[in-house]
Amino acid sequence: MTIFDVSVPVSARLPTWPGDPPVSLTRASSIANGDPANVSRLEAGVHTGTHVDAPVHFVDGSTGIEEIPIETLVGPCLVVAANPPGLELRPQDLPETPHKRILFKTRNSEHWARGDTDFETEFVAVGLELARRLVAEGKLLVGVDYLSVESYHAAFEHPVHHALLEARIVVVEGLDLSRVDPGEYDLFCLPLKLVGSDGAPARTVLVRR
Amino acid sequence: MTIFDVSVPVSARLPTWPGDPPVSLTRASSIANGDPANVSRLEAGVHTGTHVDAPVHFVDGSTGIEEIPIETLVGPCLVVAANPPGLELRPQDLPETPHKRILFKTRNSEHWARGDTDFETEFVAVGLELARRLVAEGKLLVGVDYLSVESYHAAFEHPVHHALLEARIVVVEGLDLSRVDPGEYDLFCLPLKLVGSDGAPARTVLVRR
Repeated sequence: MTIFDVSVPVSARLPTWPGDPPVSLTRASSIANGDPANVSRLEAGVHTGTHVDAPVHFVDGSTGIEEIPIETLVGPCLVVAANPPGLELRPQDLPETPHKRILFKTRNSEHWARGDTDFETEFVAVGLELARRLVAEGKLLVGVDYLSVESYHAAFEHPVHHALLEARIVVVEGLDLSRVDPGEYDLFCLPLKLVGSDGAPARTVLVRR
Repeated sequence: MTIFDVSVPVSARLPTWPGDPPVSLTRASSIANGDPANVSRLEAGVHTGTHVDAPVHFVDGSTGIEEIPIETLVGPCLVVAANPPGLELRPQDLPETPHKRILFKTRNSEHWARGDTDFETEFVAVGLELARRLVAEGKLLVGVDYLSVESYHAAFEHPVHHALLEARIVVVEGLDLSRVDPGEYDLFCLPLKLVGSDGAPARTVLVRR
């Protein structure tokens, strides 16, 4: 069994979505100050780094992270390599597959491999036609390798997020797929069980047997 | 494949260690206020709920959460039912086993099953003799079902934490084992990859095939 950690390291150097709360990790207690232990305090937006979106992120009054079935977050998945000419993943970027969990590996992953600290606006994301295909085919989960499943230049209405989240497709964002080859894996995407939250950071691994 | 979620739900109702930062989840952006999406901000201690301790929690200058090998956090484990007469798990509470990852299911789990919101001081924890046995046998990981591997009444020096963390045994705390039977599982304990942190919340599942 080989385990691939596809989570990005979380620190104040991590790029975050413009306007989202920044990451702060500070010591609340410290051995150097005479406390028995070092104990840190985390402050962060819940859409930080590798994370999952809940329906209530874009559908007001809908369900939070803790209601996503664990059986959706864990199971077989397909990593698809795709490099569309523009910034949108298209229906033809996804081969016909019975897999219900799809992760798209694009040139975005190079940002993580290089350790870029600036937020990148020109990332590759899921286009609306592809989103509609994922819904039509009853997919369970879609993962992307930058901080949003939808283009930075999307309209205020965010049709891709709405299409996916209204269909209860689990959206995983901020994956670092730079060190995994395309193909089949077992996915373990484990977001913090934050009650009622619109999102949660999720340590995520792929397992190949 | 059956998946058991052994993570406690994280909210302001969750009991936290006395003196540790409380849990706060608030909306930084909200659809009701005219924003395109709901985006929450999390503030919490890194030893909140189901979580992992890093060596630097008690060993100043030692390594953080992100350096714990993923191969230690994922793999076969044994859930052991134990109900010692006092508050300390003893060497005789662990049967002879080649398993390298041990989770102790005790009466502590009833607090999670009931949804108790007050911090409990009289929880069952690992005693020093058992900690020394775990070290001597080269165990990789030990998990407990309340918020510390060490008694609330431990001395300032915290010998159990020191014994385990100095031996690089991964400590998982705050598991809810109330719904799993003792026996063998595959453990997936996935702490947030918080760079340099003394701990991290960890969504954790057990898989039975």
